[in-house]
Amino acid sequence: MSSSLFVSRRNRRTPFTDRIEAHGVTGFSIVNHTLLPKSFGRSVEEDYWHLREHVQLWDVSCQRQVEIQGKDAKKLVQRMTPRDLSKAEVGQCLYAPLIDENAGMINDPVILKRAEDWYWMSIADSDVLLWAKGLSLGMDLEVQIQEPDVSPLAVQGPKAEILMSRVFGKPVTMLKFFHFGEYSFEGRKLVIARSGYSRQGGFEIYLDQTAMGGKLWDTLWEAGKDLEVSPGCPNLIERVEGGLLSYGNEMTRENNPLECNLERYCNLDGTIDCVGMTRLREVAKKGIQQRIRGIVFEGEASPPCGFPWPLIHDAQKAGYTTTVVWSPRLKTNLALAMVRKEFWATNQELLVELPDGTQRKGFVTDLPFKEMAGTIG
Amino acid sequence: MSSSLFVSRRNRRTPFTDRIEAHGVTGFSIVNHTLLPKSFGRSVEEDYWHLREHVQLWDVSCQRQVEIQGKDAKKLVQRMTPRDLSKAEVGQCLYAPLIDENAGMINDPVILKRAEDWYWMSIADSDVLLWAKGLSLGMDLEVQIQEPDVSPLAVQGPKAEILMSRVFGKPVTMLKFFHFGEYSFEGRKLVIARSGYSRQGGFEIYLDQTAMGGKLWDTLWEAGKDLEVSPGCPNLIERVEGGLLSYGNEMTRENNPLECNLERYCNLDGTIDCVGMTRLREVAKKGIQQRIRGIVFEGEASPPCGFPWPLIHDAQKAGYTTTVVWSPRLKTNLALAMVRKEFWATNQELLVELPDGTQRKGFVTDLPFKEMAGTIG
Repeated sequence: MSSSLFVSRRNRRTPFTDRIEAHGVTGFSIVNHTLLPKSFGRSVEEDYWHLREHVQLWDVSCQRQVEIQGKDAKKLVQRMTPRDLSKAEVGQCLYAPLIDENAGMINDPVILKRAEDWYWMSIADSDVLLWAKGLSLGMDLEVQIQEPDVSPLAVQGPKAEILMSRVFGKPVTMLKFFHFGEYSFEGRKLVIARSGYSRQGGFEIYLDQTAMGGKLWDTLWEAGKDLEVSPGCPNLIERVEGGLLSYGNEMTRENNPLECNLERYCNLDGTIDCVGMTRLREVAKKGIQQRIRGIVFEGEASPPCGFPWPLIHDAQKAGYTTTVVWSPRLKTNLALAMVRKEFWATNQELLVELPDGTQRKGFVTDLPFKEMAGTIG
Repeated sequence: MSSSLFVSRRNRRTPFTDRIEAHGVTGFSIVNHTLLPKSFGRSVEEDYWHLREHVQLWDVSCQRQVEIQGKDAKKLVQRMTPRDLSKAEVGQCLYAPLIDENAGMINDPVILKRAEDWYWMSIADSDVLLWAKGLSLGMDLEVQIQEPDVSPLAVQGPKAEILMSRVFGKPVTMLKFFHFGEYSFEGRKLVIARSGYSRQGGFEIYLDQTAMGGKLWDTLWEAGKDLEVSPGCPNLIERVEGGLLSYGNEMTRENNPLECNLERYCNLDGTIDCVGMTRLREVAKKGIQQRIRGIVFEGEASPPCGFPWPLIHDAQKAGYTTTVVWSPRLKTNLALAMVRKEFWATNQELLVELPDGTQRKGFVTDLPFKEMAGTIG
């Protein structure tokens, strides 16, 4: 079994790993030094259809929390992102690009504002803890920074709301998108947010006690049997169709947030003094030269994309793919891609060059992908 | 194939991945967001015997370099480690614990001093780049910090020296242990060190141009055919027998370097002003309460250790295992373990509690493991 390659303490187990194994997990990925289940013996396509119709439990404990607390917490958090957090309210989830001194993307967490002096950053795959600690030590700030015992469990899919209301009661269904509250479970208050890494709706439960993982999983499982609840994981087809970006795939430290379509999370009016802001404003003034766009391309189901594949137009390099999938619903290949300015217009034709050297006709499209308006010319 | 689960740009390919695939790699692990080949269809035991007799090429590109350069480089590097680097010489490799403000282990790189104002940190699995950048920004230092296009290829095993001399000439065999030099290859100077994550001897070639990966691999491969050269990877059995520690397994941020037997890399006389030094000196004064030790334990070949297993003595918790293997040479189970002070004496008897609840008799031993002097009583 592939997962046996990952048996080491370095690849950290989660409060739900026992249950995942009982469900016959057949493979893991690693995010933030933590196991992320990737497969349960069904195809990505089967999982995709199930996610769109029913409800799934995702062990996304790998979304580790960087907890920043104390007198200077607000100052440090704002120092880390170009998003204006001055009007953020307790109970809000805030998607926020984190950038370095060159305005390069370091991570794109969801920040939970728990109190005026207490934040959780629910992170993608990089050690934001070390970045935050380094900054705060160097700046001599009064903050405590740690990775608490908090492990998100996502409940995703159209039946998520009914399942959650059965376990946590009606009030949880009143949560607004990207807001969180505290809800009782077994005599404990758990943070629950209406959020998640899919476009099918759902919740994320921030379990804060490892020992309670089995109980939480089992309770949701029992309550969801007639809803066809299933174990799952972020689905590659659904994510790409929905235009959801992935740190490490669509964006790296080489990219600034404007290239990643994150303008609306960047306050460039000069009032925000974060690391990299000077550089980011220069970039904005000059104008970006490339941007993440959708690509639709012809031919049979493409192999997955393990490194950037060139996009070509008239023998010129027009950009590169970052993620590629076959969409069984749209019945075509889709790519997320970094496309140069001269070529990023909707319906721009270009060629996708696969690792075997073949070139396939495609065109540029908006995100998220829609039922196909254009055709491959 | 298990490796298909890892096809994404986030899990970065290396200059050698094409060759590794041509050799039929059957699984990868992920270190520093980079593919580390873990298996070539042979058992870990077969690889172990081969490594002890012949020579292997290891794609350890995942040992990413954190390059620190500039006027304040020396200051920043010393700020990051309790090891006294004041007398370090250009051309030296320096194993160095990196610690945080609580004296917790952040990483344990080999530092290559390339010039007075130019360092490479060849890192284990955590984003030291972010830590270094955060510190330097906060402290407002004049340094450039980046991850250069440098990918180590290890040549390990008793025949490593003869293979290296065939490709790089006699001078490379004059290298002293944990020193590096520059050697010509295809008109380029490559940094080569006598080092590597095994006890069988060997070298690490710091390839600094991705495009040259295939050529370097093929040249070593052709030159090594009669030496039974083989693709390989750090071998779990060999590493544990040799008492080589692994960051994330034997040590985490929860551990200080003294607990990890790294006293000789900590200058505690008060002359070193690194992050965490105040705390580390307090710890040293008070005396540590636990330490990494070897454990030998009975019974059939143990399953691998995916999380700490309790060590028990008279119903008391004596510590926990961090890595477990069956040694085919010593014909017993070996563990690296964090053992409490009251129980860490050599030959101390204790029980290892496996995940299935069974307890096996064992005893404490020195590291590295030797031909067995004691017996399981």
